[in-house]
Amino acid sequence: MRLNRAPYNEAQLYITLTPWSQSGSHERLYGDEDHDCSAAKPATGSTVTHATPTKEKEEPGMPFWEIYTPEDAFTDEDKEALTQGITSIYYDLVDLPKFYVVVVFHEMPRNSIYVGGEAANNFIRIRLDHIARKTVDYIEHHTHKKTMVNGIALGSLTSEQIRADFHEKVEEVLVPFVKERGYDWEIHVDETPEDLWRVQGLVPPPGWSEFEELWRKENRPVPYY
Amino acid sequence: MRLNRAPYNEAQLYITLTPWSQSGSHERLYGDEDHDCSAAKPATGSTVTHATPTKEKEEPGMPFWEIYTPEDAFTDEDKEALTQGITSIYYDLVDLPKFYVVVVFHEMPRNSIYVGGEAANNFIRIRLDHIARKTVDYIEHHTHKKTMVNGIALGSLTSEQIRADFHEKVEEVLVPFVKERGYDWEIHVDETPEDLWRVQGLVPPPGWSEFEELWRKENRPVPYY
Amino acid sequence: MRLNRAPYNEAQLYITLTPWSQSGSHERLYGDEDHDCSAAKPATGSTVTHATPTKEKEEPGMPFWEIYTPEDAFTDEDKEALTQGITSIYYDLVDLPKFYVVVVFHEMPRNSIYVGGEAANNFIRIRLDHIARKTVDYIEHHTHKKTMVNGIALGSLTSEQIRADFHEKVEEVLVPFVKERGYDWEIHVDETPEDLWRVQGLVPPPGWSEFEELWRKENRPVPYY
Repeated sequence: MRLNRAPYNEAQLYITLTPWSQSGSHERLYGDEDHDCSAAKPATGSTVTHATPTKEKEEPGMPFWEIYTPEDAFTDEDKEALTQGITSIYYDLVDLPKFYVVVVFHEMPRNSIYVGGEAANNFIRIRLDHIARKTVDYIEHHTHKKTMVNGIALGSLTSEQIRADFHEKVEEVLVPFVKERGYDWEIHVDETPEDLWRVQGLVPPPGWSEFEELWRKENRPVPYY
Repeated sequence: MRLNRAPYNEAQLYITLTPWSQSGSHERLYGDEDHDCSAAKPATGSTVTHATPTKEKEEPGMPFWEIYTPEDAFTDEDKEALTQGITSIYYDLVDLPKFYVVVVFHEMPRNSIYVGGEAANNFIRIRLDHIARKTVDYIEHHTHKKTMVNGIALGSLTSEQIRADFHEKVEEVLVPFVKERGYDWEIHVDETPEDLWRVQGLVPPPGWSEFEELWRKENRPVPYY
Repeated sequence: MRLNRAPYNEAQLYITLTPWSQSGSHERLYGDEDHDCSAAKPATGSTVTHATPTKEKEEPGMPFWEIYTPEDAFTDEDKEALTQGITSIYYDLVDLPKFYVVVVFHEMPRNSIYVGGEAANNFIRIRLDHIARKTVDYIEHHTHKKTMVNGIALGSLTSEQIRADFHEKVEEVLVPFVKERGYDWEIHVDETPEDLWRVQGLVPPPGWSEFEELWRKENRPVPYY
């Protein structure tokens, strides 16, 4: 995986060009936080810029994380730093309001988690839901805004690339809390329907709409009336 | 959201005509418990009666709720009343046997839930699965039975309307336990495959079948033999 | 359900020919562990061998189990034996590496689980995710290997049959820990996207690939470099 250690607010992201073989080279795609980088350097490779947008797949959307850890794996300060890193991924990568990012920590007593039939007391398991947002909307948004990052037009990314980006970024955020502390770990994501979700009783606005932009700016669910 | 406070066994439901903007008016659709209301008043608006049934989407089906609360948020009496309200939604709205409705409460210690990178100790998070049932079956069932409620033929409802109804009803049930006690809250629903589900080792009968009616009446998984 | 009691490592599996009515007869399909049984007896019925493979559905894949039990329902020895039984299902049925099988036990305090609006303190609820693998790959793999078990070509199975098999096997594994101890129980499964999953930071290899075979043999996520 050759993860580059990076502070999570630096938003360095790498594309895995070959989806399952990670022996290939990684291309850096994004390098700034606001996705509008006038002095961006051109990317070395040009493959990704010609990729055909995939319309069936979906974006990482509103996340609900559940993190199962051994007892006392994380201090309150760890949890705050880790969840700020997680929050930044969504804020930077797919333009979500920060308060959309919910993380639940479950401290599990010894012999609560089993892997392959054996108690796994050094294991951190992460399961999350994404309330999926349509890739086509992401593409239209960034095509319209002509967002360029490191010479890559975000509107030209495929769903596969965005999803791989997401996982690269997650692994970077996890490194100091999980890998460098010697834990084993595994993560998987489910996707859930956009219209079966309410925040504070409100239907959340559509992805990349002006109302969502307001929610993002105010960092709270602003009522419609 | 302008939720009308109502006892949850009254089964008052409102349709949100504009899916994400809740500034529009709500139309009351159902008003009785058995969905067979001979003295029903005609609805004020007629828009919903002409809606084209959506066949791709699915109904709220067998629910598995997980409710994450601060410690001591609910007494046993609260939990019983709240889960009875939740159960009524499914029993009234989509004709489920009551014992299908399973709710798990997780009392979370302080600093277990983070929202946008900050500890959220006044927050109730709800995540649930619906084992989806086909809207087309719901429509056929109620078209066949000619079920009329407040002048609305249930067989004419779209999936979007039923799903919006569901969330309206849920918010009504939550109000006294969550909003009126000053908690923040969020809810989302996933949908899971119908054929990957067993109750007491039995394959549950198809939605709106005679056998399901028996399970509903007896409120237990009656074996087939 | 007429479950035949069997030690879970014997891998006896029965096909439910009529998906929801379990009053029909069951046909034994698999009888050995390595799915390559030269001395296999022909099956009594021939119906299943002519079934058309279903390509849209998916296999049981990487599982993440969550088991909610009353407090002190299982000893550590129980949990080990139960999770070894669960692991065998995937190892035998769909050729997964054993370390893919993760099971989390949640011991729930009294009055944490409600069924139909009433506290259920004698109830074991199981919810799991499968990171789905494509049935078409399973069929191709076993067609290519010409795997025969009890006279049935595994490559000829439909997705429905494999999914029903899975549940039959699960119920067999649960019997001594759940049914025979007098607990009520219910289980359901969700399916999640294959490309939103990382093990120890690695993208897992495709189902039935040579690299997966290596992971299976070594029972660990072997890096690609």
